Amino acid sequence: MTDFFQLSPGNTIGILGGGQLGRMLALAAYRLGMKVHILCPDSDCPAFAVTPHKTIASYTDQAALTCFADAVDVVTYEFENVPATTAQFLAQRKQLRPGARALAIAQDRLEEKTFLSGIGVPVADYLAVTSPADLLEAINSIGTPAVLKTTRLGYDGKGQVVIRSADEAAAAFDVLSPKPLVLERYVPFTREISVVAARGADGSVRAYEPAENRHVGGILRSSTVPAQISDALAERAYEITAHILTSLDYIGVIGVEFFIIEDRDLLVNEIAPRVHNSGHWTEAVCATDQFEQHIRAVAGWPLGDTSRFADVVMENVLGEAMIGERDLITRGTRPHLYGKTEARPGRKMGHVNRILRPI
Amino acid sequence: MTDFFQLSPGNTIGILGGGQLGRMLALAAYRLGMKVHILCPDSDCPAFAVTPHKTIASYTDQAALTCFADAVDVVTYEFENVPATTAQFLAQRKQLRPGARALAIAQDRLEEKTFLSGIGVPVADYLAVTSPADLLEAINSIGTPAVLKTTRLGYDGKGQVVIRSADEAAAAFDVLSPKPLVLERYVPFTREISVVAARGADGSVRAYEPAENRHVGGILRSSTVPAQISDALAERAYEITAHILTSLDYIGVIGVEFFIIEDRDLLVNEIAPRVHNSGHWTEAVCATDQFEQHIRAVAGWPLGDTSRFADVVMENVLGEAMIGERDLITRGTRPHLYGKTEARPGRKMGHVNRILRPI
Repeated sequence: MTDFFQLSPGNTIGILGGGQLGRMLALAAYRLGMKVHILCPDSDCPAFAVTPHKTIASYTDQAALTCFADAVDVVTYEFENVPATTAQFLAQRKQLRPGARALAIAQDRLEEKTFLSGIGVPVADYLAVTSPADLLEAINSIGTPAVLKTTRLGYDGKGQVVIRSADEAAAAFDVLSPKPLVLERYVPFTREISVVAARGADGSVRAYEPAENRHVGGILRSSTVPAQISDALAERAYEITAHILTSLDYIGVIGVEFFIIEDRDLLVNEIAPRVHNSGHWTEAVCATDQFEQHIRAVAGWPLGDTSRFADVVMENVLGEAMIGERDLITRGTRPHLYGKTEARPGRKMGHVNRILRPI
Repeated sequence: MTDFFQLSPGNTIGILGGGQLGRMLALAAYRLGMKVHILCPDSDCPAFAVTPHKTIASYTDQAALTCFADAVDVVTYEFENVPATTAQFLAQRKQLRPGARALAIAQDRLEEKTFLSGIGVPVADYLAVTSPADLLEAINSIGTPAVLKTTRLGYDGKGQVVIRSADEAAAAFDVLSPKPLVLERYVPFTREISVVAARGADGSVRAYEPAENRHVGGILRSSTVPAQISDALAERAYEITAHILTSLDYIGVIGVEFFIIEDRDLLVNEIAPRVHNSGHWTEAVCATDQFEQHIRAVAGWPLGDTSRFADVVMENVLGEAMIGERDLITRGTRPHLYGKTEARPGRKMGHVNRILRPI
């Protein structure tokens, strides 16, 4: 395999994972004339409804992975919990973009913080925790309030407990152990923003403007662009994002979440090595949306225009809350539903982009 | 079957025809959470690459049509040459939107002109021609220059001959007969525009702004919005389009092509009962593009916002002319490729939308 190569229309993008992100990546690949092959263990996943080429298999089924690799021209993924062994196995057979290292780092909070600190990116103070004694020591060092988190498989606010004083330590440890844990200083942030950006196979980096994100119960509710932050902070967020992309020799779209502290400082909260919910606004107001940008990058094509031509708010449609008449007919409103038939509480069923003032 | 019904996410849109229009309709249906089933005789058609649900069959294969009708919740079509008997056969089994009448009218130039004249819509003078004697009589009545056209299956400039004087009549007749023919007065138009509009199941009509179209050799090269016409002419074009939609009790998107004469008068050239090449610009600068609008209409959903937030030029990518670096990286440029592998001269391989000044 060469490091640099370029797909043609008619080639096939292999996508690990068949959720809504995989579905939207497929639609973007189609707009560039590509084919798509999805691998997912869930036979009822959203992405299977939009492609004739699918493999229903566990991520650890090596026979299935081998067939999948043979059937596609490049492999990418739509979620960060693809097992590291799977990524390595596939990377030996086909170009994997982004690479296995980005995946390994993003799926483990401790690895992530170690990597980010190591390249000089500001993160909240943290310490690894393997025992109750460790935890007390960590609380002593970091102070309270602090957040105890599992290092792996945490998402949408799951796998974490806030510790307000040392006497809550034992109970918190019991809730989350025996999983590997990390204690992080609680960051008194005033805003949450994210930068969605891409690095192409040619090393070029293109970022979308920061979105300001509102979470409720750990789940993203809305992303608003522009974010209410200074140009200097936005510039700093771009620089950090580009530094992360370059340090990882990354190819594809990344989502970098930041905490803004007192509107003058920032920390990286976490990185997602994939298209990101807080980048869904790009499909309504950018010539090249994040999904197409990711396909361009993994296909070795030049990155597209990330500028936006309007202000926009993206709102997630969660659980039973369906899109109503208003979301279908209001001027500038653009719905996107994922075709999920079963609505569970908090499940992401779709999103609505509201295009505001043109700029 | 009821006259008014509404699909839900998870329901299936049946599409007759698997060209690029069917493919783009499928992508729009997916964005609304729908499934898609394509029927097409060509096993290699562009739309088959984007759906797991397909029927490879002739449009006259009644067993296949029956299965197709059973597998879908509504039937629509992406081209006007679906046989009338096929449309009637399907309409007896499932809601067909737009209806069989619109199809019958649009696929026969004589029926089309008769219908349009009958509802008071201005068209070029025309006369049916069934013999060389007829043709001479028609030339006498209409004058020259005139255009002799087959009544059926003409597209992209095929199936027509310009007659400059009566002594060219016999040769022209020989070229096109024994097909049914129609002689039309040659219209000395200064511009060609089109209005793409939709009528919903609730009877509401929404139109996009007129596009100004440039044809070369009978094939659409580009559509530019705004068109360089007066507000009064645009208003007249809307009125005519709405009148056609209402007269046909139409449900779905229609394309109406107009000739503009000396920048103060207009005639309808032809109507297409489907999404239209000259409406591809809507995907770049409208909250609801023509493909989504059509799916909304046939699904019984409310029509979406047709306003645009920028000026735009759509250019077709024809034959061997592939999308190049410039089309991928220029600011505001949005490519769309159809995944066709074989490039024949004049074949529509994709299009590029160039987003210009925001409005």
